[in-house]
Amino acid sequence: SEPLMLIAGPCVLQTQELAFEIADLLTKINERKDVNVVFKASFDKANRTSVDARRGPGIDEGLRLLEQVHRHSGLPVTTDVHLPEHCDPVSQVCSLLQIPAFLARQTDLVVAAAKTGKPVNIKKGQFMAPEDMRFVVEKARASGDGGVMLCERGTFFGYGRLVNDMQSLPIMRSFGVPVVFDATHSVQRPGGLGGATGGNREMVEPLARAAVSMGTDALFFETHPDPDTSPSDGANMIPLAAFESMIDKLLQLHATVRSLG
Amino acid sequence: SEPLMLIAGPCVLQTQELAFEIADLLTKINERKDVNVVFKASFDKANRTSVDARRGPGIDEGLRLLEQVHRHSGLPVTTDVHLPEHCDPVSQVCSLLQIPAFLARQTDLVVAAAKTGKPVNIKKGQFMAPEDMRFVVEKARASGDGGVMLCERGTFFGYGRLVNDMQSLPIMRSFGVPVVFDATHSVQRPGGLGGATGGNREMVEPLARAAVSMGTDALFFETHPDPDTSPSDGANMIPLAAFESMIDKLLQLHATVRSLG
Amino acid sequence: SEPLMLIAGPCVLQTQELAFEIADLLTKINERKDVNVVFKASFDKANRTSVDARRGPGIDEGLRLLEQVHRHSGLPVTTDVHLPEHCDPVSQVCSLLQIPAFLARQTDLVVAAAKTGKPVNIKKGQFMAPEDMRFVVEKARASGDGGVMLCERGTFFGYGRLVNDMQSLPIMRSFGVPVVFDATHSVQRPGGLGGATGGNREMVEPLARAAVSMGTDALFFETHPDPDTSPSDGANMIPLAAFESMIDKLLQLHATVRSLG
Amino acid sequence: SEPLMLIAGPCVLQTQELAFEIADLLTKINERKDVNVVFKASFDKANRTSVDARRGPGIDEGLRLLEQVHRHSGLPVTTDVHLPEHCDPVSQVCSLLQIPAFLARQTDLVVAAAKTGKPVNIKKGQFMAPEDMRFVVEKARASGDGGVMLCERGTFFGYGRLVNDMQSLPIMRSFGVPVVFDATHSVQRPGGLGGATGGNREMVEPLARAAVSMGTDALFFETHPDPDTSPSDGANMIPLAAFESMIDKLLQLHATVRSLG
Repeated sequence: SEPLMLIAGPCVLQTQELAFEIADLLTKINERKDVNVVFKASFDKANRTSVDARRGPGIDEGLRLLEQVHRHSGLPVTTDVHLPEHCDPVSQVCSLLQIPAFLARQTDLVVAAAKTGKPVNIKKGQFMAPEDMRFVVEKARASGDGGVMLCERGTFFGYGRLVNDMQSLPIMRSFGVPVVFDATHSVQRPGGLGGATGGNREMVEPLARAAVSMGTDALFFETHPDPDTSPSDGANMIPLAAFESMIDKLLQLHATVRSLG
Repeated sequence: SEPLMLIAGPCVLQTQELAFEIADLLTKINERKDVNVVFKASFDKANRTSVDARRGPGIDEGLRLLEQVHRHSGLPVTTDVHLPEHCDPVSQVCSLLQIPAFLARQTDLVVAAAKTGKPVNIKKGQFMAPEDMRFVVEKARASGDGGVMLCERGTFFGYGRLVNDMQSLPIMRSFGVPVVFDATHSVQRPGGLGGATGGNREMVEPLARAAVSMGTDALFFETHPDPDTSPSDGANMIPLAAFESMIDKLLQLHATVRSLG
Repeated sequence: SEPLMLIAGPCVLQTQELAFEIADLLTKINERKDVNVVFKASFDKANRTSVDARRGPGIDEGLRLLEQVHRHSGLPVTTDVHLPEHCDPVSQVCSLLQIPAFLARQTDLVVAAAKTGKPVNIKKGQFMAPEDMRFVVEKARASGDGGVMLCERGTFFGYGRLVNDMQSLPIMRSFGVPVVFDATHSVQRPGGLGGATGGNREMVEPLARAAVSMGTDALFFETHPDPDTSPSDGANMIPLAAFESMIDKLLQLHATVRSLG
Repeated sequence: SEPLMLIAGPCVLQTQELAFEIADLLTKINERKDVNVVFKASFDKANRTSVDARRGPGIDEGLRLLEQVHRHSGLPVTTDVHLPEHCDPVSQVCSLLQIPAFLARQTDLVVAAAKTGKPVNIKKGQFMAPEDMRFVVEKARASGDGGVMLCERGTFFGYGRLVNDMQSLPIMRSFGVPVVFDATHSVQRPGGLGGATGGNREMVEPLARAAVSMGTDALFFETHPDPDTSPSDGANMIPLAAFESMIDKLLQLHATVRSLG
C-alpha cells in the first residue's frame, strides 16, 4: 500500500521560469495523499535524430537549474545520464538517476550509476525483452545498493513504431524492484516525421490507466505549459493545464486498484 | 454507462454435462448488476497446429449443444464460423456470430455473417493494424445491419509471440463499434510448444484489468473446471473455481472507471 | 542440379487476350535451358482490403481461361484455392494448387488440396515462423502424396510492413520440400495506401537474386504489360517488357550458384 | 567494379599469438584479386549481457595488439569505439573506426568518430529503419569528411530474435555510401541463452551469399580457430579452417554479380 510515485517535468531544461512554473503545479499535486512527486528534466538530449536538433543546456547549467528547482519547490529531482562521468556530479544534486533506454545495455554506465549509492531508474531498452532486464538489475545490484527501478517505455514493433507490452510491468516487478510506466515516451513514433519524432498525446491517459490498473509503482509524464513550443517530444506531452485533472483520475483508479489487492 | 458484456465459456464443446456446469456459474454471475453474460464455445477448432489435434463435435452436434445450453440457462450463446455456409445455421441458434482472427480478411465469410442480420464479433487479425479493421467494419456494414463488434486478441510480435497493443481498444472504438478484449487468447504463445500452443494464465487478469481501465465494452474469457484436460488452450484458461472472484474484481474496477468518465 | 522453376503470370485473370500475351512471353522464356515455367493467375482475390475491390472472374470462368492458356501455350498452369470445395475442380485443370498465406493454418483446406493428388504450393503464413511450417507439411503429407512446396512471401514486421526472413528458405528446405520465393508479394506494403495495398517494384529483382543465391528451387513473379492498370498488386509487378532480361540475369546467377555446390 | 571489402577477425582481442594466426590467413586471402581485407577485433565488449562476462584487454593493450597485427601483416586494422574519448587514440592505429549498433543514435560518439578524419563504419541500430540511417550519415558528414560506411547487422524482430531486412542494403546504398553486411552478428539470438547470447553459424554463408548477390560493397565476419573457446559470439563464428573456402565461393559469386551489372 505504497503511495503512487509520479516522475514528471518538462522533457528538457529550458529556462528557470519554465521549470518553476511546472514545479509549482507538481508541488500542489504532491500535497494530495497517496502520491510522491519527483521533478524530472534532461540537461542533454544526446540521441536526437538530427545533428542540428537542440540538445539542452548541458550538464553544468542543467544541474544548477535542477538544484534551483529542488530549493524552490522542495521536490526531489532526477535526470538522465549518458556517460559514466555524468553519474557522480548528477548524484550530488539528484535523488534518483535515470539510464536512457538506448543505453540500458552499456555496462560501464549502469555500474557508474549504481556506484553513486543513489537509486537508479533504468529504462527497458526498446529492443529488450522484459525478462532480459533481470541481467541489468544484476549489473546494478553488483555495483551498489542504492536500489533499482525498471521503467517500461515501449518496445520497437517494426520500424518506427512502439508498442507497450504491458506484461512487462508484472514481469519486471517479479524481479523484486518497483516498476515505472513512462506514459509519455510510450506514445512516441520514432522516425515518424522525417528527421524528428512524432507522437500521440491522446493515448497517454488510456495507457497510464492501464498501467495503474496492473499495479505499476510509478508513472512518468512529460508536461509543459505549451507543448508545441518544447524543443523535443512536444507531440507526446500533456499540456500543464490538463495535467492535474488527469492525475486526479489516475489517483482515484489507484485507490480502487489497491483495495482489490 | 452500459453494463460490461462478458463472453465466456469452454474453448471447445465437449459434453453437455461440462457445458451446463460452466453455464450454471455464468448464470450466477449474470445475476450481478452491470454485467451481461453470453455463453461461448466452438464446435470446430479449424486451424489447429497439428492434423491430429482434436477439433470438436462439428457443426450439427455443436449447435445442438449450444441450443441446450441456451434452454437450460437462458443465456444468449455465440460461436465462431469458419466457412460462409456456417453462418445461416449458426444464426438460427446464436445471438452473436464470431469471426476468427486468421479469417478477418476473408470477404465472403464476413459478408455471409453480416447478411444473417445478427451482430458479428470480428476478431482483429493478429497480423492487422487496428486502423485497418475499419475496412472490415465497412465490409460488414455494407452487407447487413445487425451490428459489428471488434475484438483485440493479440498481435504477432515476431515469431510465436503475441503482444497486445492496448491502443487498439480506443482506436477500434473510434469507428463507432463496441470493442471486446479477449483476455484468454491474448496470452497464447502460438507454436511455442512444438506442435501445440502454450500460454500464460497468470497474465489474464492483469491484462483484463488494463482493458477495463481503458474502457473496453466487453471481455472474453475461456474457463474450464479443469483446464489441463481441455482439448485446446488449457494453458490460457481460468479455472472455473477462480473465475467468479476475478470477475468481481473486474466489475469493481469497471464501476470506478465509469465514474471517472 | 534441377532447373529453376518459374511460376509467373498476371495477378488476377482478366481477359483471354491479356492471358495469352503474358503466356506467349513465358513460353519463349521456357525454351531456355535450366528453367521450367508454370503459368499462374487467380480467379478470385478473396481477401481484398475493401468490399468494393474487384475480385476476378470467379472459379468457373477462371478455370475456363486457365484451360485455354494451357492449350494455347502448352505451359502447366496453377491457381490459388480459398475453400475446400475449390480443390477438386481446380485439380482438373491445374498441375499445381496454391494455398494462400492467410489460409496456411486452415486444416480443411490443406487436407482437401492434398487429397487431389496434385502437388500443393503452400505459402508460409505472414504470421508464421518457418519452423512451424513443418506442421503444415505434415498435414498435407498425411492427406495425399502429390508432393508439397513451401513458399516464402514475407513475414509481418509490425503493422503494414513485410520483411523477408531469408533464412526461411534454407529452414523450410530442410523439411525435404522444394521452396519457392515469391518475389512480388514480398515487396507489398499491406494496408499502406488507405484501403488498398502498396508495394515497391524496385526491390523485386534484388530479393530474387538473394533467393537464387541461397538455393531457392523456384521463383514466383507477377508480371503484366501495364502494371498500373492491373486490378490488384500493380505496384509490385514487373512490367512484361522488363521481365525477360531480369529472368536472364537470374538464370546466369543460378548457373553460378549451382556450380558452387 | 570495386573489389569486395572483407572485414574480418576474432570477435575480441585475446593473445598476440591468436591474432597473428588469424591475420596470417587473412593476409593469404588478401592476395587474391578482387578482395581487400581489413583486420577487425574489439578491445572491449561494452554491452555484454552479464556484468561478469569477459570484456577484453581494454583500450591501451588492445591498441597495442592491433598495431602489432598491422606491422606483422601489413593489413589495415579496425575496431569499435564506445565513448567519444576513444575516437582519437583509435584513429592513431586504425584505418577505419566502427560505431556499434546500440550506439548508432549517440550524437557525440558519431561526431567524435567523424572528426578524426578517418572513415567510419556505422552499424545500423537493430532498432532503426534503414531509411532513418540517412540522418546518421548526415551527422557524420557534418563533422568530418573521412567517409562513412553503413552496416546491416540485423533488426530486432520481436524479443531476442534478429532478422535481416535485406532491403536495407540497397536502401542504405542509395544514400551514396558503401554498405557492409555483417554476416556473423546477423545470426545472433540475443538473450536466447539465459544470460549469454546464442547464434546459428550455419546461416552465415547463405546470408553472405544473399548480400553479395544484392550488391554489398563489403562483408564482415568473425572467425576463430576454435570458436567454442571464444570469450564471446562463438556460436556465430566461422571456424578458421572453413573460412578460406567460404570466401572463395563468395568471390566467385561476386564476379558473376559484377558481370550482370
